[in-house]
Amino acid sequence: MADPRFFQRHGPFKLSELAELSGAELAPEADPDRMVQDVAPLDAAGADDISFLDNRKFLARFRASKAGACVVSPRDQGDAPGQMHLLHSSTPYRAYGLIARSFYPAPVAAPRRSERATIDATAKVAADCTVEAGAVIGPDAEIGPRGHIGPNVTIGAGVVLGADCRVYASASLSHCLAGDRVTIREGARIGPEGFGFALDPGGHVTIPQLGRVMIGDDVDIGANTTIDRGAGSDTVIGAGCRIDNLVQIGHNVVLGRGCAIAAQAGMAGSARLGDFVMVGGQAGISGHLTIGDGAQIAGQSGVITDVPAGAKFGGYPATPVRDWHRRTIALSRLAKRKGKSDG
Amino acid sequence: MADPRFFQRHGPFKLSELAELSGAELAPEADPDRMVQDVAPLDAAGADDISFLDNRKFLARFRASKAGACVVSPRDQGDAPGQMHLLHSSTPYRAYGLIARSFYPAPVAAPRRSERATIDATAKVAADCTVEAGAVIGPDAEIGPRGHIGPNVTIGAGVVLGADCRVYASASLSHCLAGDRVTIREGARIGPEGFGFALDPGGHVTIPQLGRVMIGDDVDIGANTTIDRGAGSDTVIGAGCRIDNLVQIGHNVVLGRGCAIAAQAGMAGSARLGDFVMVGGQAGISGHLTIGDGAQIAGQSGVITDVPAGAKFGGYPATPVRDWHRRTIALSRLAKRKGKSDG
Amino acid sequence: MADPRFFQRHGPFKLSELAELSGAELAPEADPDRMVQDVAPLDAAGADDISFLDNRKFLARFRASKAGACVVSPRDQGDAPGQMHLLHSSTPYRAYGLIARSFYPAPVAAPRRSERATIDATAKVAADCTVEAGAVIGPDAEIGPRGHIGPNVTIGAGVVLGADCRVYASASLSHCLAGDRVTIREGARIGPEGFGFALDPGGHVTIPQLGRVMIGDDVDIGANTTIDRGAGSDTVIGAGCRIDNLVQIGHNVVLGRGCAIAAQAGMAGSARLGDFVMVGGQAGISGHLTIGDGAQIAGQSGVITDVPAGAKFGGYPATPVRDWHRRTIALSRLAKRKGKSDG
Repeated sequence: MADPRFFQRHGPFKLSELAELSGAELAPEADPDRMVQDVAPLDAAGADDISFLDNRKFLARFRASKAGACVVSPRDQGDAPGQMHLLHSSTPYRAYGLIARSFYPAPVAAPRRSERATIDATAKVAADCTVEAGAVIGPDAEIGPRGHIGPNVTIGAGVVLGADCRVYASASLSHCLAGDRVTIREGARIGPEGFGFALDPGGHVTIPQLGRVMIGDDVDIGANTTIDRGAGSDTVIGAGCRIDNLVQIGHNVVLGRGCAIAAQAGMAGSARLGDFVMVGGQAGISGHLTIGDGAQIAGQSGVITDVPAGAKFGGYPATPVRDWHRRTIALSRLAKRKGKSDG
Repeated sequence: MADPRFFQRHGPFKLSELAELSGAELAPEADPDRMVQDVAPLDAAGADDISFLDNRKFLARFRASKAGACVVSPRDQGDAPGQMHLLHSSTPYRAYGLIARSFYPAPVAAPRRSERATIDATAKVAADCTVEAGAVIGPDAEIGPRGHIGPNVTIGAGVVLGADCRVYASASLSHCLAGDRVTIREGARIGPEGFGFALDPGGHVTIPQLGRVMIGDDVDIGANTTIDRGAGSDTVIGAGCRIDNLVQIGHNVVLGRGCAIAAQAGMAGSARLGDFVMVGGQAGISGHLTIGDGAQIAGQSGVITDVPAGAKFGGYPATPVRDWHRRTIALSRLAKRKGKSDG
Repeated sequence: MADPRFFQRHGPFKLSELAELSGAELAPEADPDRMVQDVAPLDAAGADDISFLDNRKFLARFRASKAGACVVSPRDQGDAPGQMHLLHSSTPYRAYGLIARSFYPAPVAAPRRSERATIDATAKVAADCTVEAGAVIGPDAEIGPRGHIGPNVTIGAGVVLGADCRVYASASLSHCLAGDRVTIREGARIGPEGFGFALDPGGHVTIPQLGRVMIGDDVDIGANTTIDRGAGSDTVIGAGCRIDNLVQIGHNVVLGRGCAIAAQAGMAGSARLGDFVMVGGQAGISGHLTIGDGAQIAGQSGVITDVPAGAKFGGYPATPVRDWHRRTIALSRLAKRKGKSDG
């Protein structure tokens, strides 16, 4: 179970309740009244726990699991050990997430405002927000209902956050308008001035960065990630985007809805990503490129051309994944031949 | 126009004033008394705005622009739409930057010292500095005239900042001496102890890092970038360098004047860069290497040898760009041949 | 010598004292009563200083050095200039580190608690800790003896730090249990929720992250590095690990003892590293892989398969270093041939 130092467990729940809240279906043999006490990974779960199988890579753990209940795709039910009560779902990980959230909902504290927070007199902070010690909220900033502003956070002048937003420790925002249910994690930097200057041997000339960062609803931005504000137009993060830690997003970048950007990836200025684009860790996308809806970019790739919708690209320079794999194999063979002829 | 929530516009200016302050020249047909209200990108500008064309990639937007005025290279003036009053410049982006700064100068607030700032009694902070809430300034630190120390910033013991320096939210400095007009952006870390230890199976032994970070005039350091202090000698950032977000600069690295280092690039310990070196995003430079004046390193390259002055290097291991492109093309052809013979 | 603005020197020491505290041996010709005033690099050291030679790359500097004393491997003693008093060690860098620490021990201030720190009434902070201005320590957190909590640090609810831990400016910790002598550098993020969600076109579903970050004794974590807490099981950083700046460590990653992870490297979720693994700068390790004890991963590599104990891997996809070099050479030759036949 999760360490009670850090996590407060709710429940228990009947298996039928978990089915309903997760959109899964009770298997015919499952006992709807079975009580479930907690969630746990396959290899740690016991008789009172519910677990999940999403990736067949873990089928052996599934077969050996002592979990009393499990969310599983119908195609894998035949491998279930005898004691398991099954919930069927075509998206077991999603269903598990909803179940886990019912056991461990986001903590809701009574709204409070630390005396050690510094809130400008002109800022509009909804009455039911929590503002923790060391937070600094600037002039004319607006924080919507049920917001949570963590310790040592800085909210710059004029910044707007919608309802139910959470900003974690030491993050900072400026020149930013955000929607509802937006999460900004520890140390993230939203709205810095960015890398705009004219090269000049006599001293580079700074170009004022006059745009904003526009953040849609349900966006989640990772720890120590940096998102520069626009240079003239805005930097835009579409609704539902998930951005991991230490990601760099340059000025004027536009992300469509639901993109997933893994850790340490970088997007240079004015790159445009469509909806539901996935970018792997440490990948780089050059400036002024267009990446189509649903495209997938492999980790560590270097993208220097546009990518069509739905395409899977990888390598450096990035190409369709099939071509990239061919290059890798061809080079490996060539090196082996050379190795032989040299040796 | 820039969002008045975040930006305060000055002006208007006559076209002749803008020519003078930017070093551009009025085209013969241009009306020197034409009033300009604002700056704007080519595709958003209207009759009262001034824009610029620097990259011929955007020639189509230039031709279709409704801007009342534009800074442009004389070679492109033939493509200007009829309504446009032109300023000529051989460096239109630079001229635009100076014009934009006249409309949107860096905000100058009346100096103030938040009661929520913590300034050691022995620190010397010039009377006309602004120090915001949550800032902590340590013993014997010195902040020169007109400095701006943002919210939740930490200035360590003994740190010196010259005149007109700005440190943004949550950045921290230690063991650092900086010149005038230095900008440290949100969350940047100047002066950490760095990665110095002797490997030892019985427990790695920390090597005390006894150097400093020396920062020249007019340096600009990006958000969440980290610059370690020297191990014995100093880490040096030459005057006029521009360093983007999430860059790592190891101990004893020396950057000459005017270098431009793009986001997520990294320089290992004791690398030495000459003047006006350009390093692309996510590039890495190994330790103890020398990169000559004016060299250019492509994004994502891995440099493991010295680079001569003026050279353009790319790839991993990085080589002259021409060789790198040849390798890319040769491999692509090889893979296609293999693909055919395999298929 | 180190700048007295930032560093307070102890000593002087007799050469015999330095030999004893560093485990080095006095060379037969060395004067045990020779007084040493300071440490210095080979090229800056004078008659009263002690230096070291660890890497034969710097043999020329060693021969030309004016240092009065030097730690050196016995094999290199023949190259020593006449004035030098030698200490012999098979690990000169390690011995130098211990000597430098005797001249420049970590500063020990009288314990103090800033009135500007915010410490929850239920937190247990040892009486001899220092807590600086702007630090925020949450409910039920525990800080062991002689801890140092820097300015603007955030320690979340329930976090435990053992004895002699140091947390530098603006770092934040949550959901974390740490051992003794742990160092968390400026802006590091320990315990964020991490990148856990089920992809869903109707809105990605957040998976609650219910694990912790477990940090062993003597761990050192670099500036602006991010370490996500576990998803179900824990993220584990083994005793003695050294982690550089801007490193990303995903949820459920397990590092054995004494690993050294260079700057900007990234480890995706559930990667497992053995003991004393070394990972070069900007390298990436995919999720769910196992890297054996003592393996070495070259800088910028992309590891997408397991790596056996003791192996040296490099390239992307990473392979044994020998194969990677062969690929590099084969490609270079192929490109040259093509270049000729094309030209």
